[in-house]
Amino acid sequence: MVERGEQLDNIQDKTDNLAQAAQGFRKGANRVRKDMWWKDMKMRMCLIAGVIIIIIVIVLAGHVPSHVRAISCLKGLDVSADACVTLSQYITNTLGIHCGALSGANLALEIAQKKYSESTIAYRLPADYLKGQDVDEQVLYYLFHRPYFHVNVVQDVTGVCLAGALKNVIAIAAGFVAGVGWGDNAKAAVMRRGLLEMIQFGTEFFNGDIDPSTFLKESAGVADLITSCAGGRNVRMGAEFAKHKSTKSLKQLEAELLNGQSAQGITTAKEVYEFLEARNALDRFPLMVATYNIAFNGLDIEKLPEILGHHWEVKHFKSKL
Amino acid sequence: MVERGEQLDNIQDKTDNLAQAAQGFRKGANRVRKDMWWKDMKMRMCLIAGVIIIIIVIVLAGHVPSHVRAISCLKGLDVSADACVTLSQYITNTLGIHCGALSGANLALEIAQKKYSESTIAYRLPADYLKGQDVDEQVLYYLFHRPYFHVNVVQDVTGVCLAGALKNVIAIAAGFVAGVGWGDNAKAAVMRRGLLEMIQFGTEFFNGDIDPSTFLKESAGVADLITSCAGGRNVRMGAEFAKHKSTKSLKQLEAELLNGQSAQGITTAKEVYEFLEARNALDRFPLMVATYNIAFNGLDIEKLPEILGHHWEVKHFKSKL
Repeated sequence: MVERGEQLDNIQDKTDNLAQAAQGFRKGANRVRKDMWWKDMKMRMCLIAGVIIIIIVIVLAGHVPSHVRAISCLKGLDVSADACVTLSQYITNTLGIHCGALSGANLALEIAQKKYSESTIAYRLPADYLKGQDVDEQVLYYLFHRPYFHVNVVQDVTGVCLAGALKNVIAIAAGFVAGVGWGDNAKAAVMRRGLLEMIQFGTEFFNGDIDPSTFLKESAGVADLITSCAGGRNVRMGAEFAKHKSTKSLKQLEAELLNGQSAQGITTAKEVYEFLEARNALDRFPLMVATYNIAFNGLDIEKLPEILGHHWEVKHFKSKL
Repeated sequence: MVERGEQLDNIQDKTDNLAQAAQGFRKGANRVRKDMWWKDMKMRMCLIAGVIIIIIVIVLAGHVPSHVRAISCLKGLDVSADACVTLSQYITNTLGIHCGALSGANLALEIAQKKYSESTIAYRLPADYLKGQDVDEQVLYYLFHRPYFHVNVVQDVTGVCLAGALKNVIAIAAGFVAGVGWGDNAKAAVMRRGLLEMIQFGTEFFNGDIDPSTFLKESAGVADLITSCAGGRNVRMGAEFAKHKSTKSLKQLEAELLNGQSAQGITTAKEVYEFLEARNALDRFPLMVATYNIAFNGLDIEKLPEILGHHWEVKHFKSKL
């Protein structure tokens, strides 16, 4: 600070010091900008890679021998009012080959830096499995397991695919709660309820083809949910939506803030809602339905505890979730 | 910035602006200091309340009618090499009354602000239960459930108490991982492995008296683990320990940074280790054992993936955790 009457030299020295500090700040800001540019570029590359894979699948259709085995590393779900198909099943349907899935708490940047992480591989032995000459759990384990990248091999392909897709909807809801500033208790509550609804979804619509422990115990389940709700595009979009007090739509925020990328949970929330509505099952998925209604129908986020509380109470004394 | 030859008035204006900015910063810093003081004071009050409750329990011993029912809101575990007793059991043993437990993802400050949260009440009907004249699940539900504070009533008192104590050890481990900068993947991996070891501990040493779903599905389990690893004293101490590259002990950091409060996980990690060692069970709890060894025996945090990976591999092809 400068007092009237101070010597010009003093003022000069002070402003020089401040100039130096400003220079330091500018350098820091430049570094952050560069880091963000590189991060953004990597995300774009991942997106392009995803599109290329889908094109390859379409081009390959009818040209791949049926004894080829595949592991899908894309976490997708093709949901419409009519059906809900996992990406692994889509590959099998399109290419006629047996397909598993890899999913987990795997932020790509951290894996690229060889930081410790875990993943889940889901693979079920095919009907034409030839012992000793075919891909099995142990082969997959040795193919993918690394000192810094640990894999667990399970049989529940459907569960792994479902968890990878549905967790994005829960991350949007966690973002809502974070955006209105309810803190860690509320966020954990939403994640817990979300985990239970994910299992309910799998159990109800996949005829016992899922194993609840995939969701509860594997990296592709609870751990992936934890990382997705800690950070990432879905939770960020949910939080921004809440902060803007629903004056901007999620799609608008996505366009403004994600540089052409998408937050998958927005689309999945809508698709899941339509799927549930067509099956008259909305009442059994209060969190997913509320997430859709907050995102697309102007439901007030403040209503969330009431919606979840009432439902819980009913469930508790009738059939526990 | 100031160029030589600029007019004195210009320099004066610029420095005045900078002085204003500095004033704003000082105000912000003062506000943060006040907030932290109040937060610290509340924590001290909680600690004093805890000590008072324990004194009350001791004073009341022998003076409470046996038909009185209690719910312990303190998450404790009395572990020694000889035995492991939950606080709820300790109250029953000392006062001769039937005791349940309340635990969950419940940061006190957020509940006091009536922000949405969930909790778990564990209560098992006593042998002398009188239907219609006694405390039961429904009574407890209506006693504790509020529009912003949702409770679920379960029977697994031991599981709820265990989860509330053991999650502090996992939070220390999550802090280690955060402190060395491994990111969200690694933190989620440690939380997942921790959750499985918590269940393993309950299953192995409480003769089937716990229900794994308490840990996997209830607020007192997975949700409390999530909030505890997101913030709080244990994860903070673990992170500080890692940042200081083990040059300062956890107890030293606790004394320096927590103003006389304690991070319960430090003590529990040591007690649990001694309990496991006395039972020749160290090999079945690699994360908890590694946490102890990092904290007290100079084990390098960098060894953690190797320790967890090797164990996992062995488990996978023999008996799955």
